Amino acid sequence: MRNFSNDHSALALNTATLGHNLDGRGAGWSPEQVIDACAARGMAGIVFWRREIGPRAVEIGERVRAAGMEVVGLCRTPYIVGAEAPRDLDEARASIDMAAGLGTSILTIVSGGTEPGTKGVLESQKILADRLASLAPYAAERGVKLALEPLNPMFGGNRTVLMTVRDALRVCEMVGAPNLGVAVDVYHVWWDADLRDSCARAGDRILGYHLCDWLETTRDMLLDRGMMGDGVADLKAIRAAVEDAGYAGACEVEIFSAADWWMRDPAEVLDVMVERFRAVC
Amino acid sequence: MRNFSNDHSALALNTATLGHNLDGRGAGWSPEQVIDACAARGMAGIVFWRREIGPRAVEIGERVRAAGMEVVGLCRTPYIVGAEAPRDLDEARASIDMAAGLGTSILTIVSGGTEPGTKGVLESQKILADRLASLAPYAAERGVKLALEPLNPMFGGNRTVLMTVRDALRVCEMVGAPNLGVAVDVYHVWWDADLRDSCARAGDRILGYHLCDWLETTRDMLLDRGMMGDGVADLKAIRAAVEDAGYAGACEVEIFSAADWWMRDPAEVLDVMVERFRAVC
Repeated sequence: MRNFSNDHSALALNTATLGHNLDGRGAGWSPEQVIDACAARGMAGIVFWRREIGPRAVEIGERVRAAGMEVVGLCRTPYIVGAEAPRDLDEARASIDMAAGLGTSILTIVSGGTEPGTKGVLESQKILADRLASLAPYAAERGVKLALEPLNPMFGGNRTVLMTVRDALRVCEMVGAPNLGVAVDVYHVWWDADLRDSCARAGDRILGYHLCDWLETTRDMLLDRGMMGDGVADLKAIRAAVEDAGYAGACEVEIFSAADWWMRDPAEVLDVMVERFRAVC
Repeated sequence: MRNFSNDHSALALNTATLGHNLDGRGAGWSPEQVIDACAARGMAGIVFWRREIGPRAVEIGERVRAAGMEVVGLCRTPYIVGAEAPRDLDEARASIDMAAGLGTSILTIVSGGTEPGTKGVLESQKILADRLASLAPYAAERGVKLALEPLNPMFGGNRTVLMTVRDALRVCEMVGAPNLGVAVDVYHVWWDADLRDSCARAGDRILGYHLCDWLETTRDMLLDRGMMGDGVADLKAIRAAVEDAGYAGACEVEIFSAADWWMRDPAEVLDVMVERFRAVC
């Protein structure tokens, strides 16, 4: 296995790892506190969630850059298909505007689930492609790339119709827009024996790499992700697959962990993140 | 879409659908009561679990055949790899003996999880193949075929290293034993856009077809499977994929449903099973 440099210049924080600092999770840090803590640890950047930004996109983006980092991405559009998707794309366009305001070039998309009146995923993937075809030019005009994030198949039904990098690439090919690509998240794709081949095929369509670990015993589908090194994902192999395909962007740690990491001091979480990234990723 | 004959001559019961009639679930029916109820409804056969059989394999197998049905299969060997697998294959061989005693030709295998000291699934798949290579001849001598059942990727870690039909076929090819094949279970593979291709490649290695539905919102990973027609799986397409590949065996209904179907009168569950199978499968 290839050895990566053991620095952490590529490391980024997805604020989900600190429980979004919302809803009574984590220490309730403001975006400014998160920015300062990440900069102090020499991180490359931060990925925010829309709910943390509100009307302050431009201000927060400038603060991140003033601290010597970049806004690596924004999570995420509303669902585009499925029973829980909004009726039109207005909110999706608003999230593109927010990404542009933050000065980030990457906006993540979780597709949403199987479209009402259909079965399986194939028909919904086509409907998804149609809607993305109308959304992608709006994003391109604002300098924003759209990163389709396949989710673990356990999220099929109500959350996703993209279960693999291969699924996401199929939709990219249907749309054919130059600013549409894929986000590769360890939690969702660690199990895929074809991942290395899919990443090679994705090439410069890989727009993000999200890190955590898959715990041997996962007690909660949504909120029991592990810190890197605590689980069974082959993190070095996945990073090699992504980077050998040409990805040179940030490695973004995104850990939803209601019972463990969200209960800890955010400063401790960030310190462990840095240490584990250097040791096992 | 192809139309299937709307009879239910291919329908079989996996006793998990009645909560195994154990642990206070269902009505606590004996194997004899299950046999009589299935025969009365014109089903093709029954799949039992080891815990229901104990030392009565020969007697129960004869009773099923006397009722005009067959024992479609036995669930299942212990895990073969992973932290929870037994240290040797003695219990796996005992489950082969039980399948032979029941007079069924199909024994299902759930692989078990990632082998301690390894990461990901690929190395564990090789270890699995090594162990199956020593188990398969023992089964062949007793007229038993081993059906590797890929599980939904959410069961990676502690339960499976086979997430797709493609994974299971890869292991079959490593082993090369004529009595090793694949079980296709809707709950585990409904989301796989490559399923039809994988089934075509599997051909006569498809040894079982397990039915249920994937609910749009799955509240529990293990015990919230839906009755056919209540979810988003494309049941007709999956059955066509399996049967177009050459599978001509039973369609086995296997529904783990702690909060819904296990709470109902088993006679009602069987009646709904028949009705839904004729209507939507």
